[in-house]
Amino acid sequence: MLNIIVNGCHGKMGQVLVKQIEHDDELNIVAGIDTEPEKIKMSFPVYKNIFDLKEKAHIVIDFSSPKAINDLLDYGIKTNTPLVIATTGMSPEDMENIKNASRSIPIFYSSNMSVGINIILALVQMAAKTIGDLADIEIIEKHHNLKVDAPSGTAYSIADKINEALNHSKEYVFGRHSYTEKRKENEIGIHAIRGGTIVGEHSVIFASEDETIEISHSASSKNIFALGAIRAAKFLIGKAPGFYSMRDLMDN
Amino acid sequence: MLNIIVNGCHGKMGQVLVKQIEHDDELNIVAGIDTEPEKIKMSFPVYKNIFDLKEKAHIVIDFSSPKAINDLLDYGIKTNTPLVIATTGMSPEDMENIKNASRSIPIFYSSNMSVGINIILALVQMAAKTIGDLADIEIIEKHHNLKVDAPSGTAYSIADKINEALNHSKEYVFGRHSYTEKRKENEIGIHAIRGGTIVGEHSVIFASEDETIEISHSASSKNIFALGAIRAAKFLIGKAPGFYSMRDLMDN
Amino acid sequence: MLNIIVNGCHGKMGQVLVKQIEHDDELNIVAGIDTEPEKIKMSFPVYKNIFDLKEKAHIVIDFSSPKAINDLLDYGIKTNTPLVIATTGMSPEDMENIKNASRSIPIFYSSNMSVGINIILALVQMAAKTIGDLADIEIIEKHHNLKVDAPSGTAYSIADKINEALNHSKEYVFGRHSYTEKRKENEIGIHAIRGGTIVGEHSVIFASEDETIEISHSASSKNIFALGAIRAAKFLIGKAPGFYSMRDLMDN
Amino acid sequence: MLNIIVNGCHGKMGQVLVKQIEHDDELNIVAGIDTEPEKIKMSFPVYKNIFDLKEKAHIVIDFSSPKAINDLLDYGIKTNTPLVIATTGMSPEDMENIKNASRSIPIFYSSNMSVGINIILALVQMAAKTIGDLADIEIIEKHHNLKVDAPSGTAYSIADKINEALNHSKEYVFGRHSYTEKRKENEIGIHAIRGGTIVGEHSVIFASEDETIEISHSASSKNIFALGAIRAAKFLIGKAPGFYSMRDLMDN
Repeated sequence: MLNIIVNGCHGKMGQVLVKQIEHDDELNIVAGIDTEPEKIKMSFPVYKNIFDLKEKAHIVIDFSSPKAINDLLDYGIKTNTPLVIATTGMSPEDMENIKNASRSIPIFYSSNMSVGINIILALVQMAAKTIGDLADIEIIEKHHNLKVDAPSGTAYSIADKINEALNHSKEYVFGRHSYTEKRKENEIGIHAIRGGTIVGEHSVIFASEDETIEISHSASSKNIFALGAIRAAKFLIGKAPGFYSMRDLMDN
Repeated sequence: MLNIIVNGCHGKMGQVLVKQIEHDDELNIVAGIDTEPEKIKMSFPVYKNIFDLKEKAHIVIDFSSPKAINDLLDYGIKTNTPLVIATTGMSPEDMENIKNASRSIPIFYSSNMSVGINIILALVQMAAKTIGDLADIEIIEKHHNLKVDAPSGTAYSIADKINEALNHSKEYVFGRHSYTEKRKENEIGIHAIRGGTIVGEHSVIFASEDETIEISHSASSKNIFALGAIRAAKFLIGKAPGFYSMRDLMDN
Repeated sequence: MLNIIVNGCHGKMGQVLVKQIEHDDELNIVAGIDTEPEKIKMSFPVYKNIFDLKEKAHIVIDFSSPKAINDLLDYGIKTNTPLVIATTGMSPEDMENIKNASRSIPIFYSSNMSVGINIILALVQMAAKTIGDLADIEIIEKHHNLKVDAPSGTAYSIADKINEALNHSKEYVFGRHSYTEKRKENEIGIHAIRGGTIVGEHSVIFASEDETIEISHSASSKNIFALGAIRAAKFLIGKAPGFYSMRDLMDN
Repeated sequence: MLNIIVNGCHGKMGQVLVKQIEHDDELNIVAGIDTEPEKIKMSFPVYKNIFDLKEKAHIVIDFSSPKAINDLLDYGIKTNTPLVIATTGMSPEDMENIKNASRSIPIFYSSNMSVGINIILALVQMAAKTIGDLADIEIIEKHHNLKVDAPSGTAYSIADKINEALNHSKEYVFGRHSYTEKRKENEIGIHAIRGGTIVGEHSVIFASEDETIEISHSASSKNIFALGAIRAAKFLIGKAPGFYSMRDLMDN
């Protein structure tokens, strides 16, 4: 049985994670941390301050906020507890602190905990390296009608991964309208479809002479981020101190 | 055996049509019209001026130019020959002339001779009428990297058909980028993907709460326009004078 | 405010319906019926026997069992309450009884309450009528890996609708393996993909010479059946006695 | 300018190759070999017997028949000419002979010359290694209605590549019909769609909990095999004797 502390247990993703852990017989939550513990009813004790924790755990899974990162790192080092950090929006300085802490304890960090999205990133990079000089590349993403940003962060991550594989030779193009000239070779078209309650779809097209390759990902719930964090936690147990990423988990 | 005159027999579509007719045992080309007959080797006589034609035919199929329309209409009326008009780019005045001529002879006219595209137009209109108030509608089209206009004319035709079904309540949106607000209900997003040698794909998405309907068309060659024109020709034989469209052919 | 009785309020679909109604400001559940009311905690009174009901409602929505149909019809007639019947698995005799009852009260019946699926049925029928003689038709459905039947009932409904439009000239083919002959014209291929947690996808392909039309439906939760039943309830209020179906709702 | 001999220049693929080479300014055909040279009009001399060739070339591209392989290998060794072998249906003994010959001259061999299909094989293998234990894998292929074998050879190649990556733990399942049990974990479903004039589409689905990855390839003409062979020829020039495959070309 793996004993877990959930940092940010009452946030949107924290709640998804808690539900997912409760479905897994190998896992057990010993405590949670959140900003207003007095308002939260959970089946485990919830603290406001991570240093008030009396329970000992094998690992902390963090879906909180960049503001909470320094306390989390201190706690991990002080109690020698491995950390899975799934919080997004870290600054370069935060990243620096995380990397420094990973000299003392094992830390798994990913800005996107979906195993599937990370496979997509690896696949498109492989495809770009192989066929990038022969193919026109376009990215289509679909999300629900309440999403305020477009294109999605993941679409940018995919485009950046491709561009990196092609020596940053590509420019991003958003929407084509009333053009009177043909597509340029150095374009990556990025298209943001919005509609209904679509959770998230990303598709990359490599179109060359008489053949097209398409690599797609479709998510049906935010569960995938919780499942990825749990998979990371199981992977991290028993590892030496160090900075681990989805690439390590996938190569495993 | 159906004897056919091909108006514009050496143009891009004219040549596709000639090849297609030669594969059909029920059809026979008796003559063609084109601007430079002396430069063209065909298995049938080619004339510069339609009034020089000695051959008699059951029907004329026209893939020429709006400039040639008045001569064609005159010829049809004078010789009592039915006309299939597949030339694009007609002015309102041309259309008026075509409709007038159709009081004397049967004329089949369509700005898009693909049977499939016309079915798509009917299907999206039906879907828009039924679910248009519940669903967010987005159009994605894909074409080869040499196409200079974006979005495609067919994508606009589809959008217009939907908008017509919804009392012109929709606005077209082309590409979303760095938005910081959510999708508006009155949007139809239109997205132009360009790559490789893709002949032509159009897809319409109706995304509503927890379900999505998609209606798609994919063409693998310009043959479909020739095939549609041939189908129209076979349909038109024996009809009374009048103005016929793809809708009549489909309802047949 | 529309007052509703939910018949079968604690079944799988009943629970989804209750949750959905609670999100709708125009709707209110006054009572539910289920087999073991003593075990159920709901925000409204639950009865075992529909005739024990003290509450009066504008409509009953039924997601129960064919066994409960006769009591439901009796209740509807006796109290002059319109019925939305979404229970599947009715026998021909049950259907007979429902139709008889609909002479006295308005009854909405559909074996599939998804508005989207019903649009798909109408669309494929239209496409089959128009292009059915020119196109090869294939159906692909995808569901989660726990589904025990294959192909899905909806895939059969789609195939039947197509076959009906084509004078029952088609035969169903399930999986092609080691064939040494080409496709026959009278085939409808039906393919059942199973994997992961896919809620339900159905796609119909009309493949003809150089063009392909595809009509697809994708569901992301069982909510769509509850949403359809609610839409049917709102539609049914104020209607004259009679037998109403999804086709009436869509033509509305 | 690269001087090329085309072995099997009048076969189906040979003709496609000849046309493709004629479009490429860097390439020149100096001679062809085929079984009935007296019946063939080409812009270059055609011989029945490869040893009658007077012309010297930089490379031979072979789209002929396994029966012609030994003469081809002899010719290559005797004249020290590199070979691109794209002929399918080689026996294990043929393969042995090819490998032996590759000790003396550079030989490029692939049973599938499409660069895209070979990328797909690499991508699915990568995905299978990473997510194969978490995902249900299904393969869908689509081809025209005249194709006599099902599933396609490429679909089997894809399935074998996946199975190889998963220690041959999978069984192939073709079509699901009237099943009353759920999908087994060790299945790979393979589905053969047939319709219209579809040139060739292959799609692999990795469906896991709440997310699905799809890797697809679509071909619009047999040109892709000719393009791949030409790419292989350009790659092979200047290489040391040895056995080269698509993997070498892609890693280049």
